[in-house]
Amino acid sequence: MGLKVYVDRLSQPSRAVLIFCKINGIDFEEIRVDIMKNKHFSPEYKAINPMSQVPAIVDGRFKLFESHAILIYLCSAFPGVASHWYPGDLFKRSKIHSVLDWHHSNLRRGTVGLVFNSIIGPQNGFPSNAQAAKEGEKLLMKSLAKLENFWLKDGRFLVGSLQPSIADISLVCEIMQLELLSEKDHERILSPYKKVVQWIEDTKKATAPHFDEVHDILFRAQKRFRERMATESVKNELKSKL
Amino acid sequence: MGLKVYVDRLSQPSRAVLIFCKINGIDFEEIRVDIMKNKHFSPEYKAINPMSQVPAIVDGRFKLFESHAILIYLCSAFPGVASHWYPGDLFKRSKIHSVLDWHHSNLRRGTVGLVFNSIIGPQNGFPSNAQAAKEGEKLLMKSLAKLENFWLKDGRFLVGSLQPSIADISLVCEIMQLELLSEKDHERILSPYKKVVQWIEDTKKATAPHFDEVHDILFRAQKRFRERMATESVKNELKSKL
Repeated sequence: MGLKVYVDRLSQPSRAVLIFCKINGIDFEEIRVDIMKNKHFSPEYKAINPMSQVPAIVDGRFKLFESHAILIYLCSAFPGVASHWYPGDLFKRSKIHSVLDWHHSNLRRGTVGLVFNSIIGPQNGFPSNAQAAKEGEKLLMKSLAKLENFWLKDGRFLVGSLQPSIADISLVCEIMQLELLSEKDHERILSPYKKVVQWIEDTKKATAPHFDEVHDILFRAQKRFRERMATESVKNELKSKL
Repeated sequence: MGLKVYVDRLSQPSRAVLIFCKINGIDFEEIRVDIMKNKHFSPEYKAINPMSQVPAIVDGRFKLFESHAILIYLCSAFPGVASHWYPGDLFKRSKIHSVLDWHHSNLRRGTVGLVFNSIIGPQNGFPSNAQAAKEGEKLLMKSLAKLENFWLKDGRFLVGSLQPSIADISLVCEIMQLELLSEKDHERILSPYKKVVQWIEDTKKATAPHFDEVHDILFRAQKRFRERMATESVKNELKSKL
């Protein structure tokens, strides 16, 4: 019984796990858990992950959820994975744990807070929450500044590495969620952080062609969202003229 | 140059690291970073942890922050640490990573949201935020239910362990922060979760006498907060009679 990976490619940690498996030639079966159709709340999926979140894996008799834990597990369970993804060196490994832990309460909370409350929620019938979106953006900007000035200060990749680790895939996939914003907002938020922008490009290149392939769904969602936003904007302009 | 541990014992992850060092006989110097006096924002401390949070460690030339990363580092860097704290077995270790990751976005956010917004903030001159406190409590209750019915379902300690791991110390220290609530709220929130209450006791016993010693500051803060709350309640009662 091989590795099964339960994901929705619209979820950033799902994409991180998929890209990691693909770039490392890990043999796996991708099983889609459509979160827009609430499949993560189904009894079948709850038997795999009682927290009703994606991603999760089943490897033989072993079940695991939480994307960072999954990425670390895969590095250890599959002998073909190059050591730069999760170095054996105690100091390097500890720094990777540190940035992954930091991610939870900073970059992730900021991105999710902004993108959900300003785009995904309102576009899917949830009441919009401008205050929550604003707080998310504030935390996101603070996190991007820390990436620029601290986490990326010593090398092309996080924590001074010359080659990508699981942390680079995880955090870059998080930031990619900002593609769902309007072009103007995306530019306004990301462009001040030159090192961050370069690092995203470097991580894309290091995981090509899988990075773009796995993100395809996100760009299709972006297109839909931006078209709807444009239509709404025209409607509002017309209204204001009546 | 030995291990230096930068903490404020009022911070739950600081207490987790201190208790871990003490129970494992790790030789270290405790350096207090008084967060009530904003010492975590001082340039000296920012040179150790640019995120201005406690705890952090300096071990020789190596600096590290984020309490989970620190606990994992200590398990690997100090050979005397018993393996149950952070098992070498891939499956057990992965489950510990999973519960530690889960902690970030669930139990921790719930506890901090409730305790800061209902007690610590208002008692220290921050505007009270009833909505944030309510959301914190909701997430906390959901997290306690998951602890009771999932994480503690297979053993005395988390993820089916018979002996405590770093995750038990970390999560129990988090829950201890609820001691700052009124006696009535503390009872109302925790008492429905019998396994959780027993697990807290088991973790205290497994780390005695260090657990109580390190938490002493919390009980002193509790006494102050509860006395103030009692005085305010008497004042409000008198006002309502006037």
